[in-house]
Amino acid sequence: MPDGTNVGLIGYKFMGKAHSHAFRTVDKFFDPTSKPVMKAICGRDEQAVSEFAERWGWESYETSWQTLVSRDDIDLVDIGTPGSTHAEMAIAAAQAGKHVFCEKPMAMNLAECRAMLEAARAAGVKHMVNHNYRRVPAVSLAKRMIEADEIGEIRHARFTYLQDWLTNPEFPMNWRLRKESAGSGAHGDLGSHMIDLAHFLVGDLDSVVGQKKTYITERPAEGTSSGLTATAGEGTEQVTVDDHSMWLTKFANGALGSFEATRLAAGRRNFNRFEINGSKGSLVWCFEDMNWLEFYSTESPAHEQGFRRILATEECHPYAGNWWPPGHLLGYDHTFVHAVYDLLEDIAHDRPCWPDFRDGAQVVAVLEAVNRSIDSGSWADVERVE
Amino acid sequence: MPDGTNVGLIGYKFMGKAHSHAFRTVDKFFDPTSKPVMKAICGRDEQAVSEFAERWGWESYETSWQTLVSRDDIDLVDIGTPGSTHAEMAIAAAQAGKHVFCEKPMAMNLAECRAMLEAARAAGVKHMVNHNYRRVPAVSLAKRMIEADEIGEIRHARFTYLQDWLTNPEFPMNWRLRKESAGSGAHGDLGSHMIDLAHFLVGDLDSVVGQKKTYITERPAEGTSSGLTATAGEGTEQVTVDDHSMWLTKFANGALGSFEATRLAAGRRNFNRFEINGSKGSLVWCFEDMNWLEFYSTESPAHEQGFRRILATEECHPYAGNWWPPGHLLGYDHTFVHAVYDLLEDIAHDRPCWPDFRDGAQVVAVLEAVNRSIDSGSWADVERVE
Amino acid sequence: MPDGTNVGLIGYKFMGKAHSHAFRTVDKFFDPTSKPVMKAICGRDEQAVSEFAERWGWESYETSWQTLVSRDDIDLVDIGTPGSTHAEMAIAAAQAGKHVFCEKPMAMNLAECRAMLEAARAAGVKHMVNHNYRRVPAVSLAKRMIEADEIGEIRHARFTYLQDWLTNPEFPMNWRLRKESAGSGAHGDLGSHMIDLAHFLVGDLDSVVGQKKTYITERPAEGTSSGLTATAGEGTEQVTVDDHSMWLTKFANGALGSFEATRLAAGRRNFNRFEINGSKGSLVWCFEDMNWLEFYSTESPAHEQGFRRILATEECHPYAGNWWPPGHLLGYDHTFVHAVYDLLEDIAHDRPCWPDFRDGAQVVAVLEAVNRSIDSGSWADVERVE
Amino acid sequence: MPDGTNVGLIGYKFMGKAHSHAFRTVDKFFDPTSKPVMKAICGRDEQAVSEFAERWGWESYETSWQTLVSRDDIDLVDIGTPGSTHAEMAIAAAQAGKHVFCEKPMAMNLAECRAMLEAARAAGVKHMVNHNYRRVPAVSLAKRMIEADEIGEIRHARFTYLQDWLTNPEFPMNWRLRKESAGSGAHGDLGSHMIDLAHFLVGDLDSVVGQKKTYITERPAEGTSSGLTATAGEGTEQVTVDDHSMWLTKFANGALGSFEATRLAAGRRNFNRFEINGSKGSLVWCFEDMNWLEFYSTESPAHEQGFRRILATEECHPYAGNWWPPGHLLGYDHTFVHAVYDLLEDIAHDRPCWPDFRDGAQVVAVLEAVNRSIDSGSWADVERVE
Repeated sequence: MPDGTNVGLIGYKFMGKAHSHAFRTVDKFFDPTSKPVMKAICGRDEQAVSEFAERWGWESYETSWQTLVSRDDIDLVDIGTPGSTHAEMAIAAAQAGKHVFCEKPMAMNLAECRAMLEAARAAGVKHMVNHNYRRVPAVSLAKRMIEADEIGEIRHARFTYLQDWLTNPEFPMNWRLRKESAGSGAHGDLGSHMIDLAHFLVGDLDSVVGQKKTYITERPAEGTSSGLTATAGEGTEQVTVDDHSMWLTKFANGALGSFEATRLAAGRRNFNRFEINGSKGSLVWCFEDMNWLEFYSTESPAHEQGFRRILATEECHPYAGNWWPPGHLLGYDHTFVHAVYDLLEDIAHDRPCWPDFRDGAQVVAVLEAVNRSIDSGSWADVERVE
Repeated sequence: MPDGTNVGLIGYKFMGKAHSHAFRTVDKFFDPTSKPVMKAICGRDEQAVSEFAERWGWESYETSWQTLVSRDDIDLVDIGTPGSTHAEMAIAAAQAGKHVFCEKPMAMNLAECRAMLEAARAAGVKHMVNHNYRRVPAVSLAKRMIEADEIGEIRHARFTYLQDWLTNPEFPMNWRLRKESAGSGAHGDLGSHMIDLAHFLVGDLDSVVGQKKTYITERPAEGTSSGLTATAGEGTEQVTVDDHSMWLTKFANGALGSFEATRLAAGRRNFNRFEINGSKGSLVWCFEDMNWLEFYSTESPAHEQGFRRILATEECHPYAGNWWPPGHLLGYDHTFVHAVYDLLEDIAHDRPCWPDFRDGAQVVAVLEAVNRSIDSGSWADVERVE
Repeated sequence: MPDGTNVGLIGYKFMGKAHSHAFRTVDKFFDPTSKPVMKAICGRDEQAVSEFAERWGWESYETSWQTLVSRDDIDLVDIGTPGSTHAEMAIAAAQAGKHVFCEKPMAMNLAECRAMLEAARAAGVKHMVNHNYRRVPAVSLAKRMIEADEIGEIRHARFTYLQDWLTNPEFPMNWRLRKESAGSGAHGDLGSHMIDLAHFLVGDLDSVVGQKKTYITERPAEGTSSGLTATAGEGTEQVTVDDHSMWLTKFANGALGSFEATRLAAGRRNFNRFEINGSKGSLVWCFEDMNWLEFYSTESPAHEQGFRRILATEECHPYAGNWWPPGHLLGYDHTFVHAVYDLLEDIAHDRPCWPDFRDGAQVVAVLEAVNRSIDSGSWADVERVE
Repeated sequence: MPDGTNVGLIGYKFMGKAHSHAFRTVDKFFDPTSKPVMKAICGRDEQAVSEFAERWGWESYETSWQTLVSRDDIDLVDIGTPGSTHAEMAIAAAQAGKHVFCEKPMAMNLAECRAMLEAARAAGVKHMVNHNYRRVPAVSLAKRMIEADEIGEIRHARFTYLQDWLTNPEFPMNWRLRKESAGSGAHGDLGSHMIDLAHFLVGDLDSVVGQKKTYITERPAEGTSSGLTATAGEGTEQVTVDDHSMWLTKFANGALGSFEATRLAAGRRNFNRFEINGSKGSLVWCFEDMNWLEFYSTESPAHEQGFRRILATEECHPYAGNWWPPGHLLGYDHTFVHAVYDLLEDIAHDRPCWPDFRDGAQVVAVLEAVNRSIDSGSWADVERVE
């Protein structure tokens, strides 16, 4: 049993903050068998990364990720950079014998994912993809209830992940809107979250059919951006990823499902929602009300049947008892703490992580099958990753 | 201008009650130019139909619909029987020079619908299909707001119509579960309502792709049924219609959409819901909260933006001012009164009805395109009815 | 057993419409032992009342209520006029041997109510006050669940009835804003509904303390009014009733409660809401979502506890099975049909009505106790009507 | 300008965790002019407090609060112990020249509060009471909107704070249920939060009238407790504080209000809710959906009026822009970070804190006025703290 797990994190923007916060918070509210040690943060801009290191309490910093992954004092490499960089980093980290924690989307395509999975398996290291919504207490509770057969055999599952930050055509370009840097638009960015939840709660997808669209094909060129506020530069640029994707699926267990991802649904900020109907009941969750799980049971007395709204902050609910008394809400960042806790425990006890690189690769396999279905105008089988 | 519109209604079950209630109520709350006169009700069981006539105030009854449609004192034939009978009745009524009001689904297939449309046009009579959800005040308000450009150019539209009365596998067979009597299951029964709303609010559909499923393929044989309670008979019978359908569409105006109809969504009694996202806002409605319309506008001040819940019971809202003061809710039956009022006015003023048989035929064209797409496993174009 | 109950209705405005609709609808959806016969409608304006009689199907009309109540062919006198007229009419009707159905508020003060009660008892006629919200299916369901001990011993009960039609200071005067015609403002008009629900669901009130206020003391003079739209006349007039009242109570069973009535709660159209907390659960209802009842039970498994939203449209719910299939909503007017049905059955079977004149008088006793508490600035005991 | 603000915290239970988390997190997401330095934590149990210090990153620990407050290297004393200890500690800290941050309820009675205020003023130190709900972004947004006159002149304000952890009579005794340690029950514990919000959003209270009750007067004796789970000991003990209080108020600005605090409202975990109705609109907020603010405006076009649900996570909303992108929810603990940030800035820039000891004392003055009104059975004036 290690007396500390040495972490090296690559990336110091949105995800860098979320992961740093998780590592420095996890052992305050939870009792990991082996506490994280925040050894090193890595980024290319030396001044920025050194400031980040100081602010967030990283013991050191690197400007080369190759250096970071080869350091002897690192046990776990955490990859929080854009998806186009994941494969190379993860493979190198695994080959250097490091456990790997990787942000989603796992990589740019299934081939990259398979290579990452092979490298991690060959090295015998732990590997996990950060699909953090699994670890919202209300979502974990849904999983537990499904496993306890509280809604019976699943028949329908509908997933939507609706955002609206691109509704305004004057919103300028950024890396998320270019195919070379982002791989895809809403389809991969939001779709990967939904597919992971579908795998978690319903099971494997057999086949898919769908459509995608870019409604606003040209945007003001990228200017300066600061935090959330973006300023347009001069001229315009072509948008090379989708704004929206919608698709249907047949699950391996016989259920039918639908998925929709968009950045143009006016009024929906982060509307990551599922509704699952089974032979004995239903479950509904939406990230915009993330602490609540809706549940319907056909087994209640007839006159009392109705969707109930469960506030998943009780000690009997997953993760919730480690924080505050019942009724005290959790937020987005808490889910990263839960992920890091589970990861540290899996490492400490030499258990498989979930979702691991196989799971993450399977998500990408579904995304690619949807793309094939769009190209062919017909149903496409989902490749199965073993 | 007639001094009364003589109505003959065929059918005296669920729809017979709803229509009778509408005809006897409409001139109490509204002021139709020509009041309806409840001339005759028609059904095959003489005792039952005569009792119904007396109870509901029909002046006479017939046991043969052929007799009814040929009576000189009938101006308007209202068809409230199962869909397999609509075409023959509607064509005969039109040929007899009667205006025709027809329950949905309009007919068993597009060919029947086309024949009905041709007959009605040839006879120069008014024709209307009763897609009553258009006339929920909140839905009519949505239409008015879309026409006033309050949500801009429509980009996404999702429609679901979820019911759960077949969730229990012990629920016995009835006519709705047999292909020969019902034509289809959830797909046509619920789908036709959604498609009509989509035509009303978004516009024509160009192409579709989908899937259907019958989850519970065998049910207890039909026993006696009394009102809503069904009793199983001996043995079992095969279910020959779908329980569930899901499909995607490309609208002619460039929007993308999704549709889902099911009778197995535990906890959803009559969850006929749409969400429409445009370039300037969004609209959401669900029949289970039928008096409310949700509206989001990107044109509100930034710090005030949010979905607002409009209680569509104000005098400035469609139909609502004819009933009660603001805040006094309407129910399912009020929508039939609105439909009958509009129909009577269209007849009195010799205006086109909406939705008419062309509109109803177009709904069936979409249903059939989805079926073709399911057979082929690929996208199918929607035939356009002119 | 009578073969028809002959009804005479006094008043043909808002309540005249609601009652007429109920009498002509009740035997369509329900099977009263003795059907109502709409014998006569009464109003002072002969042209208006004769038109109303014809429109709504009353066999005759009267312009003198004294004549109406003395007609031999009337069994039941229904009083739908403003409250200041109720006592005289009800007493005369009872003395003439007629059953009496009276709109709320029952009368202008407790003394009048007591006289009405004595007259009805002395005459041995049936007497009922139309607190129609008791007969919303969701509210009747709440009553049934309380009686079945589903929420245990009641501890807290909060009632609010919030409207907003007086928010705008330019809204002109009408009879509801004058003490001589209306008796009181929000306090009596809305308070009487809440108190009746409290009696129905919780039980008697022992003592009260409260406050009232008129925020807008002067309004444009009354002009012409047509339906819901009022036009101001010239000049202004003093408002002589309250806009708002709030008060606390101690129930006889040990529960504590609060009440609030207002016509100035911007955005609340008809927000008649209660929440009742018991030792084993809670119930919540609001008229703006009148078909839904919220229920929480401490007896569900711990991880599943949450407020559930019951759509009270099932055959197993009160009244609902007589209308439409599950999930088809009811509205405001349906509650009058339920009231009339129960009344007719009570008359036919010679059973006590509920709420009767004693119940209605007790409501007024509470309103008066609140007024006394306001005068004294301290708690006041509620007079008990036996 | 200091180059760091040295903090000493007294108390290491629930509030000790919440405050420690805030101090170690604030300079990660915000940029305080002077960062907090976590100098010392204080508690009586040396082993426990030393472990806490190590876990949470306090540089040192003390077992005597007197020692802590006299340390030269402490600038700010943070008091997170039960209310019975606040006055003595705060006065000593102020006299030692330390700024004082004090948990609510501020003290056991108004006399103590006044003494604390005098001591702080005499010493010229900063003083702040931690009514953290003011700093929920949605609540701060409500304040901003009220100040911008978006709802006009306030007329009604209703506050409820409903919890249910004492619903079960088998829940055993703890310090919160004894008068000597807790001062009061729901009345002070929850009431103080509501009163502070009322002061913040509406203004001063002039007079009050109310009632309180202890429904369950005897509970199992205290056993061992571990986190949220309490085990009963042998025998029973008398409960000496209230379970529930309800009261009315007249605000100085002419608005009328109501308040209710309880620990027995089955199903309400932390239902701290307000609704404020003004002459131009309304605002509604509830902690159980803490990220959302409901807003109604009479100034929207008539057909669009409705309560809108604003997700207060935008950069234009208070505090929210420092955390995550729009639509990423915050939780309970974030409110402590906001409080600590504001406090540090007030110290750094020598500005008054809010709410300060005067504000906290005024809250207690209201609680005491309610108690006096209960004793007298009549309205009581609220003493004004200058």
